Amino acid sequence: MTSELSLAKIATLLGVELRGETDRAVSGINTLQDAKENEISFLTNPRYKKYLSKTRAAAVLMTPAHASDFEGTALISDNPYLSYARLSAHFKIFEPNIPQIHSSAVLDNSVSVGNDVFIGPNVVIEAGASVGDGCYIEANCFVGRRSVLGAGSRLAANVTLYHGVTIGLRALVHSGCVIGADGFGIAPTADGSWEKVHQLGGVSIGDDVEIGACTTIDRGALQDTIIGNGVKLDNQIQIGHNAVVGDNTVMAARAGLAGSAKVGRNCIFGGDACVVGHVTVCDGVQLTARTLVTKSISEPGSYSSGSTPLMATVDWRKNSVRIAHLDKLAKRVGKLERENQTTE
Amino acid sequence: MTSELSLAKIATLLGVELRGETDRAVSGINTLQDAKENEISFLTNPRYKKYLSKTRAAAVLMTPAHASDFEGTALISDNPYLSYARLSAHFKIFEPNIPQIHSSAVLDNSVSVGNDVFIGPNVVIEAGASVGDGCYIEANCFVGRRSVLGAGSRLAANVTLYHGVTIGLRALVHSGCVIGADGFGIAPTADGSWEKVHQLGGVSIGDDVEIGACTTIDRGALQDTIIGNGVKLDNQIQIGHNAVVGDNTVMAARAGLAGSAKVGRNCIFGGDACVVGHVTVCDGVQLTARTLVTKSISEPGSYSSGSTPLMATVDWRKNSVRIAHLDKLAKRVGKLERENQTTE
Amino acid sequence: MTSELSLAKIATLLGVELRGETDRAVSGINTLQDAKENEISFLTNPRYKKYLSKTRAAAVLMTPAHASDFEGTALISDNPYLSYARLSAHFKIFEPNIPQIHSSAVLDNSVSVGNDVFIGPNVVIEAGASVGDGCYIEANCFVGRRSVLGAGSRLAANVTLYHGVTIGLRALVHSGCVIGADGFGIAPTADGSWEKVHQLGGVSIGDDVEIGACTTIDRGALQDTIIGNGVKLDNQIQIGHNAVVGDNTVMAARAGLAGSAKVGRNCIFGGDACVVGHVTVCDGVQLTARTLVTKSISEPGSYSSGSTPLMATVDWRKNSVRIAHLDKLAKRVGKLERENQTTE
Repeated sequence: MTSELSLAKIATLLGVELRGETDRAVSGINTLQDAKENEISFLTNPRYKKYLSKTRAAAVLMTPAHASDFEGTALISDNPYLSYARLSAHFKIFEPNIPQIHSSAVLDNSVSVGNDVFIGPNVVIEAGASVGDGCYIEANCFVGRRSVLGAGSRLAANVTLYHGVTIGLRALVHSGCVIGADGFGIAPTADGSWEKVHQLGGVSIGDDVEIGACTTIDRGALQDTIIGNGVKLDNQIQIGHNAVVGDNTVMAARAGLAGSAKVGRNCIFGGDACVVGHVTVCDGVQLTARTLVTKSISEPGSYSSGSTPLMATVDWRKNSVRIAHLDKLAKRVGKLERENQTTE
Repeated sequence: MTSELSLAKIATLLGVELRGETDRAVSGINTLQDAKENEISFLTNPRYKKYLSKTRAAAVLMTPAHASDFEGTALISDNPYLSYARLSAHFKIFEPNIPQIHSSAVLDNSVSVGNDVFIGPNVVIEAGASVGDGCYIEANCFVGRRSVLGAGSRLAANVTLYHGVTIGLRALVHSGCVIGADGFGIAPTADGSWEKVHQLGGVSIGDDVEIGACTTIDRGALQDTIIGNGVKLDNQIQIGHNAVVGDNTVMAARAGLAGSAKVGRNCIFGGDACVVGHVTVCDGVQLTARTLVTKSISEPGSYSSGSTPLMATVDWRKNSVRIAHLDKLAKRVGKLERENQTTE
Repeated sequence: MTSELSLAKIATLLGVELRGETDRAVSGINTLQDAKENEISFLTNPRYKKYLSKTRAAAVLMTPAHASDFEGTALISDNPYLSYARLSAHFKIFEPNIPQIHSSAVLDNSVSVGNDVFIGPNVVIEAGASVGDGCYIEANCFVGRRSVLGAGSRLAANVTLYHGVTIGLRALVHSGCVIGADGFGIAPTADGSWEKVHQLGGVSIGDDVEIGACTTIDRGALQDTIIGNGVKLDNQIQIGHNAVVGDNTVMAARAGLAGSAKVGRNCIFGGDACVVGHVTVCDGVQLTARTLVTKSISEPGSYSSGSTPLMATVDWRKNSVRIAHLDKLAKRVGKLERENQTTE
């Protein structure tokens, strides 16, 4: 899908100001350091400003402030990263197959399939499922009974949707994802064994959701596990049964929600940031990498735990062992304080 | 599989006392807040007791103690969560396909297949493998040479069993699981490169085991990796080569055992609780979420590490940086104590 | 592939000295405790030396120092673990199918396939892809457009390679791996929603790389994500877009690199050791399990963070809560020190 675009055309497409040469044709995007004469670059992180003077890029997307210092050809945007994102859609390298249902796909007769759908080799779709217009289901995917895939959605190869999973419009689900497996519900018995709590709910996913590779989203115990609109999940994320993720919340790789955790809208989770079960996180919360939320958060803001400073292992051993005696240390300090007051 | 049951029939099925209306027909289970008139609910967590007075549920599963306060229809159980688990089996929503071997499945001639088996589209089973009576193998699964799947087991779609994997009776293995991949065995050479230690063992899994989505269990280096009877593993768990998991031990999502870690019976691992290699954990140990077991545990009980308190990030920065100087701080306190003794 | 070898033949194969009986036939390798008379064992970890006197093994691989104490048959090696690794190749239990392209595989006409290739059932290979001589692609794998698999490589069942992924010679990629899914690139918009940054790079993987089950390696945003030669990755590892892993670096299960993290050569990552985005780790760094690298490392050596000591949960609660007040505690100590100086 790589194509050539003139700088003038790009400025129009992005709705940004072009300052400098207007008719150069560009065929790609690259970093400031590596861009060739027919590539566009962008400046968003100030620490890359040092590469600006030497870039060979045909033009550079940048803010008005940065552009005031720059003598080369500039595409001036209030939000150059967003402009870059939009431009990237014109150079994307994924080439879809033409719509068809491959002869090796196995669809139950009751499956509803919309128009302009691609269903790849060895895809299996069970009874009562529904695939919306323009969907793109790659090889070896499985869609269970009564699951619904909204129009314009893409399942990459080897995705598994269990039965009773509903996905909204324009989803992008990456390979290895498993949506709708049983939540982890088990009841202890008197002899130490466990009985299964059958998971009677489903999974309900909104519109414009992207789900990374090998992410797992379990079905609910009684009601649905819920993923809101515009949610973006990175790879290897785990969403437990009956968890709720609010609209436009994004999570970096390996973040996770235990069962019945509820996360609000517009939250940003760093990598491996997790929430324990039955806890609520309000709208607008940021969690730094590897934070574990063990109690509800009711005020927006940035929260952290866990990721203690990086040290040489020899220093870490000395320091971390002290954590095992921290309560005693604090009490010793309290005793010293009391002694000093007595002494004074 | 949803069906209607009378309350009287449910009381009989569960072996519990029914107090109140007996002939109402119910067709599902729901929470106290959301149950409709034809649904059963349950009270196990005392903090939901507040919803009891307003529930519309046809009947509520509860302990004798809770029932003494309750005027509605009660199903009285000493273990209402277990009763709920057993009831859930009557309303489960997974509808199995009828037994058959799909025409697109590829089975070696030497594969042994029991009675009443479903083998779905595109399943591949290699030479010498064995599938017990009543097994249910969903689409796109792979079963390697000489692997054995015990009677009544289900592999959900897209499960991979390598060669030489033995699974007992009534297993439930969720999608994306990989059982029997090579353990991580590598030997350093003089030039800094690594040579593979071929993994000559297999994986041996007991009866009544459930394994969550995208969980990986590696084959042993020389002998088998072993999972006991009644073990329940959540999603994205990692079990290294030659690890041993004792009977009825349960692990929440993303728990893990490094190579040759040995965990006893009836242990409960919180999410992301992990054990380093060559360490032993005795029977009856509980680990809180994100604990890292770095040395053997020989006494039953609850253990923890790692998940420090949740704070505003601005506070976390101030506090966590002090961890890098904790050894010095402790020494400063020791010096103060000695000075105070000298002073006194 | 199990076979019998004489001890003399093994000594020759491994280039080690055989001391003792030479013509015993052996058919496997086992631990010192469990080896039978026709199995070889090895001693590498000194804590297993206690089993040496009672082993029934036909011969034991060991260092000259250990052999000086040992009266049984010894295979004397300066690096017995490496010798064991090499011997393991002769007893490996993976039995490959004979080269063929299975009739159910779906290959685009433009796919280039070398000699002596096995392509299993239901494998799908898209346009422009290339499969080198001697490759072994197991059931249900997917290889996207223009991806390249070097000679002698094996993809285990259910591996997904997206488009534009290049893998070098002799790779071993385990089941459930996803290579080339989109990196996690999103740009915030004014209304709180996110726009996709299309990922225009690919993934470039060197020679002699092994990748564990359910590991995910994302494609680059503009340029390739890069994995060097001889890299060994365990299961469930996550490599973000544009990360770089240097030659011969090895990572235990669930290690991870966030986007644009760069790791040098000959590094060793313990389990769950992760590096945040845009950070550089130099050659020769070791990270202990669960370390989070939050800033660049420029000196070789061992580094740690995070995994605080294991304690009884009751003690952990008392100690960990003090971390939330550690900054204040340090200040209290400083005040005491100043007071003491004033007092003296």
